[in-house]
Amino acid sequence: MDSLQKGWFSEFSPLWPGVSLSLQVEEVLHSEQSEYQKINVLKTKEFGTALILDGVIQCTEFDEFSYSEMIAFLPLCSHPDPKSVLIVGGGDGGVVREVLKHPSVESAYLVEIDARVMEVSRQYLPNMAVGLNHPRLKVHVGDGFKFMQNHEKEFDVIITDSSDPVGPAESLFQASYFDLMSRALKPGGIVCSQAGTLWYSLPCVSSTLQHCRSVFSSTAYAAASVPTYPSGQIGFVLGSLNKDTNFQTPLRIFSPSELETMKLRYYSKEIHSAAFTLPSFAREALSKVS
Amino acid sequence: MDSLQKGWFSEFSPLWPGVSLSLQVEEVLHSEQSEYQKINVLKTKEFGTALILDGVIQCTEFDEFSYSEMIAFLPLCSHPDPKSVLIVGGGDGGVVREVLKHPSVESAYLVEIDARVMEVSRQYLPNMAVGLNHPRLKVHVGDGFKFMQNHEKEFDVIITDSSDPVGPAESLFQASYFDLMSRALKPGGIVCSQAGTLWYSLPCVSSTLQHCRSVFSSTAYAAASVPTYPSGQIGFVLGSLNKDTNFQTPLRIFSPSELETMKLRYYSKEIHSAAFTLPSFAREALSKVS
Repeated sequence: MDSLQKGWFSEFSPLWPGVSLSLQVEEVLHSEQSEYQKINVLKTKEFGTALILDGVIQCTEFDEFSYSEMIAFLPLCSHPDPKSVLIVGGGDGGVVREVLKHPSVESAYLVEIDARVMEVSRQYLPNMAVGLNHPRLKVHVGDGFKFMQNHEKEFDVIITDSSDPVGPAESLFQASYFDLMSRALKPGGIVCSQAGTLWYSLPCVSSTLQHCRSVFSSTAYAAASVPTYPSGQIGFVLGSLNKDTNFQTPLRIFSPSELETMKLRYYSKEIHSAAFTLPSFAREALSKVS
Repeated sequence: MDSLQKGWFSEFSPLWPGVSLSLQVEEVLHSEQSEYQKINVLKTKEFGTALILDGVIQCTEFDEFSYSEMIAFLPLCSHPDPKSVLIVGGGDGGVVREVLKHPSVESAYLVEIDARVMEVSRQYLPNMAVGLNHPRLKVHVGDGFKFMQNHEKEFDVIITDSSDPVGPAESLFQASYFDLMSRALKPGGIVCSQAGTLWYSLPCVSSTLQHCRSVFSSTAYAAASVPTYPSGQIGFVLGSLNKDTNFQTPLRIFSPSELETMKLRYYSKEIHSAAFTLPSFAREALSKVS
């Protein structure tokens, strides 16, 4: 079962051995090796356009809303008044598109290491890359780690929309990264990082949560359903500098008219709370994280 | 990408076109054409033994607990005192294994149309088929539809653990089936049917919910995460003859000592409630079901 043979793209990774998701492909729209990674854009038969980095599905037009809305609104709605937001990664634009829908957010910074991801997304994923053109967004091409070293106490929320912990994003899963984020945050600030699936990478989820817990006063893991991600489930590690933050209860509830403007397809205050309720095996494993 | 070529099994179905899950296979343990369907048992590399019917994954040892626990305890814990339970389908034994853990359940009937599924499961899936040997279980080989015509007002809960609505299980998704179940139930009885994923089969979920709603006073859809099912998410349509049933709030809460005996790995009272909280796109679509 080789990638792109016979009109199907198949995803393989050492992070989830023995299982592979395949998408039927109508056309390879784009293929290049950037400075950092192999970038492929596929026109799939049933899932719209898909962005693939180093052979791993980053998003499809079919289901990216679920991921983009959850990684944005779980932290934003857990903060009483998020005005300045930093997004590390997220070069496709989907997450910043959602972040800038939040009525409190005055400015956002996006720091993406690979400019080619943004350029390719602008060309092939306009419904996501629309976020990159927002007048209240500043885009910085570079390393998130280095960027934060020069930005102390600037952000209310930092969202890490990274690929998996192999390749360019590896450093974003380390304790030192959570430490750095805590210093780039204003008092009471909140972080939210892509943290993988409970089903295939529970040890990695535990270690990311542990790194977060070593720096932040309140922490939690939340799950979301995204069919084209491994196991169909992905999750987020959240941390708050405020020890009274209860992630399960959102502080910001959108009004009906706000919801109408925002056109959310996955997130709601109810799904916010439910996302922190984990299956017993996962709750038990993560309860042991110190 | 052909099934079982190059050491991988790939699942294709017209119910979810353009996407396919593949499992790496160490050995084909069993393969036969029964009177009703093609039965394959695979020893997979990472997911334990897998049962495949007509080319579709029914269960793997890795993640069957999630499905088995949820289809059992969502209806059982929504009923004040479930004593007699009917399971239609479920020849692998996983669901009845869970049903008979419930402290109120005095007797269970399992009606499976294909005896070969039970025999094969006894041989290759002993951790699931253990349910089939329970002294309080009666097993009937035959058609669930016909069985219920001779059993009026007998059951507190009826669970339909079927394959998808093509092939042998097609009739179990029809309005007439829900009507028949309502007559086989005692007053206040509850049904729970496997009802597919919100992501790929929302029209089918809607129609199953509609059939249920045409007969039952209270109805709901609940979701569970099962990595080896299409989209990694499956769900259940529940119906109650009691108009006051609020499925989201379980009536039966297991004590710590009961939980210790039951060894549940997915279900909890918290996950029970969270399962009924649906993503906005699904909540909106299902709210239109009359």
